[in-house]
Amino acid sequence: MREDLSLRVGIVGLGLIGGSMAKAFHEYTNCTVTGFDSDPAVLEAAAACGAIDAAGAPDDLSRLDLLILAIYPQAAVDFVRENGARIPRSCLVTDTCGIKTAVCAQLSALAREFGFRFVGSHPMAGREKVGFPASEASLFRGASFLITPCGASEEDVALLERTAESLGFGRCVVTTPEKHDRMIAFTSQVPHALACAYVLSPQCPDHRGFSAGSYRDVSRVANINETLWTELFLSNAGPLAAELDTLIQNLSAVRDAVRDGDADRLSSLLRQGRLVKESLGE
Amino acid sequence: MREDLSLRVGIVGLGLIGGSMAKAFHEYTNCTVTGFDSDPAVLEAAAACGAIDAAGAPDDLSRLDLLILAIYPQAAVDFVRENGARIPRSCLVTDTCGIKTAVCAQLSALAREFGFRFVGSHPMAGREKVGFPASEASLFRGASFLITPCGASEEDVALLERTAESLGFGRCVVTTPEKHDRMIAFTSQVPHALACAYVLSPQCPDHRGFSAGSYRDVSRVANINETLWTELFLSNAGPLAAELDTLIQNLSAVRDAVRDGDADRLSSLLRQGRLVKESLGE
Repeated sequence: MREDLSLRVGIVGLGLIGGSMAKAFHEYTNCTVTGFDSDPAVLEAAAACGAIDAAGAPDDLSRLDLLILAIYPQAAVDFVRENGARIPRSCLVTDTCGIKTAVCAQLSALAREFGFRFVGSHPMAGREKVGFPASEASLFRGASFLITPCGASEEDVALLERTAESLGFGRCVVTTPEKHDRMIAFTSQVPHALACAYVLSPQCPDHRGFSAGSYRDVSRVANINETLWTELFLSNAGPLAAELDTLIQNLSAVRDAVRDGDADRLSSLLRQGRLVKESLGE
Repeated sequence: MREDLSLRVGIVGLGLIGGSMAKAFHEYTNCTVTGFDSDPAVLEAAAACGAIDAAGAPDDLSRLDLLILAIYPQAAVDFVRENGARIPRSCLVTDTCGIKTAVCAQLSALAREFGFRFVGSHPMAGREKVGFPASEASLFRGASFLITPCGASEEDVALLERTAESLGFGRCVVTTPEKHDRMIAFTSQVPHALACAYVLSPQCPDHRGFSAGSYRDVSRVANINETLWTELFLSNAGPLAAELDTLIQNLSAVRDAVRDGDADRLSSLLRQGRLVKESLGE
């Protein structure tokens, strides 16, 4: 499947996400990809397998239609601050950060300062492995592509939607940075915090033989990149702390009912959980 | 694959576990299965598909080599108290309850009273669906079969191990009821409590489009049978409350580090989680 998408794309950071995007552009579209990465070995590997057409120098930024920042939040802001003057007014810039309020505010301001266009985005895909070697063209197949327009034109949002579709995403969701961060705190950040908190139990090292799917599912994402996730958590501290409070309260209610031997209260709490899942058809 | 296992087996309760066992005995062994269930329609369905050779009357208990109690903990104890006099001394009785300390103490006492043999067991398998229609012969494939001998002879434990192997279990783990319950509180009960607590967040009904594998994994078992799990939780209140305390403490530590904006503390907590997973080779 090759979509009729022909853009000059730049990707900054060829890790799991950037590398997978490069491979997907190569596999599914007619776009050319210029790769930017601080590691020469990664650029070489990406060029060798055809994921990028060329390794980029700063001046190559001036010849792009679409620039994708696939690096950590603060690094993305720093990159644009440093290189913004080279990005042409005709270029659409997007990031891939897992939090949006803090990043979009800064990148929007830089877009206004330097004159290029900006739409925030968040490809909802990942793996337990990191880096270019873990990247694959099919990573985004069926995943959600979250878009925070932040005042961008409908045309720019449509271009990003078309790009996401070409890369294999299953759907685009247009939202505000604030709603994005509130939802992501619940759907993604809490499970990551939880996985780490869970495996710190003294029973964990002995779980083999006593565990099945439940253990595997809750603990899966504890295999975390703590540098990235510390930055993501702290950039979304308000919504995340609020979600963790909610979870701790609900868990405490279950714990209290268990400790008090209160079957009615416990059964009612568990039933409420089941009813939520059922109402969602899950 | 038909194992050379020829026992006269009785199964009390043809729900997900008992029904799957009946089907697995039928499919993989030369055992005959007599089924006991309070619902005549279930007995009829089980006989129609060959999962059981016959529906049992109380007197049929006297002709069994192996009796499996695949009903709720209290119901299992009640069944034996009522029918213990009909169980021959040559019959090995086991249960399938997800908690062991409370159940094994009562069933061991009844075994001594009535003279039959007893070994506790817990087939670590399940699905999100319940009842005979959800049962399948392959349910136990690769799963752990936990055995609490409670003073039984090596011969009886070996018979149960051989039976579990025939039914497709991947491994048997022999342990004490106390260790079983402490481990199960962590590996199974906490994830179920957690799933229900998690989906009670006000964000949950809106998760679609913002969620991926992490949400799916943590929320999966919220689709709970609250009657069964209330009984399981309250029968293991001490170990479960202790595990929930541990989790709440560890979650609170993450929440506090997030709220305080303490990158070093947060990163250290997340790294500890990763190191546990890595040390387990997961």
